[in-house]
Amino acid sequence: MSVTDELLANNAAYADRFTGPLPLPPAKHLAVLACMDARIDVYRVLGLNEGEAHVIRNAGGVVTEDEIRSLAISQRLLGTKEVILIHHTDCGMLTFTDDGFKQSIQDEVGVKPSWAAEAFSDLDTDVRQSIGRIKNSPYIPVKDSIRGFVFDVATGKLNEVV
Amino acid sequence: MSVTDELLANNAAYADRFTGPLPLPPAKHLAVLACMDARIDVYRVLGLNEGEAHVIRNAGGVVTEDEIRSLAISQRLLGTKEVILIHHTDCGMLTFTDDGFKQSIQDEVGVKPSWAAEAFSDLDTDVRQSIGRIKNSPYIPVKDSIRGFVFDVATGKLNEVV
Repeated sequence: MSVTDELLANNAAYADRFTGPLPLPPAKHLAVLACMDARIDVYRVLGLNEGEAHVIRNAGGVVTEDEIRSLAISQRLLGTKEVILIHHTDCGMLTFTDDGFKQSIQDEVGVKPSWAAEAFSDLDTDVRQSIGRIKNSPYIPVKDSIRGFVFDVATGKLNEVV
Repeated sequence: MSVTDELLANNAAYADRFTGPLPLPPAKHLAVLACMDARIDVYRVLGLNEGEAHVIRNAGGVVTEDEIRSLAISQRLLGTKEVILIHHTDCGMLTFTDDGFKQSIQDEVGVKPSWAAEAFSDLDTDVRQSIGRIKNSPYIPVKDSIRGFVFDVATGKLNEVV
């Protein structure tokens, strides 16, 4: 049995105790942008319930064009106003370079990605420049509360980057 | 008190009962790509525990360059092999068009995004073409198990798109 099949059995149990539909717009008017890291269960880390916040995630929790797209839709169409960014300790993005990663792909498949891999060498610095990318976008209307954190995978604590 | 401050208090409680670090690579060798919708708590929907799967999320659960980047890093550097895609009923992406959304931005701020908003009009069709984008990427090495689902926000059930 594949992992996917195993998780579908879990979903059947989830559906059995499901209590029905919630409204589409996030109740807490919040969007969270976090790394895809398996250890960060965003709802548990922040004590969020279903229906309260948009959750955007990718490798690193970085801000590229697609996160600007998601945040623009989140704010403009669904009324979110605050943004929380989450990077974390022991992140895979600290373990390679864009040049090395892209060269390894080129060596294997013969073509090199035209996109940046978005590796970084310092967590706090990358949280700050990620916030900067959002603040510099003309497509994001609400920029009053964009706060960045590093999640400590050893303690479960969010430490704010100032 | 902002929502962000309120959730930081939740995080302090989370950290108090945190049981320590898990390994970096996802234990179930799985990457999930889901819509950012607030009602989809991916870990609960699939019965996932912390440390088991990468979770990638954006507006719509669509596949753009950034999701290829995240999936390439997930598979090539952290050993994931299966992919689960999740769109959902009552999705905001069904309620607008790319042209309309981009025109509204241009009307308001004077410039138009160079990116696609990735709106869609049929859930199953977009799940299929999202799978197609992954299968067509030269940067994703493992394509044996890429399965797509529509999460029903009224029942909590994942329905597979075949």
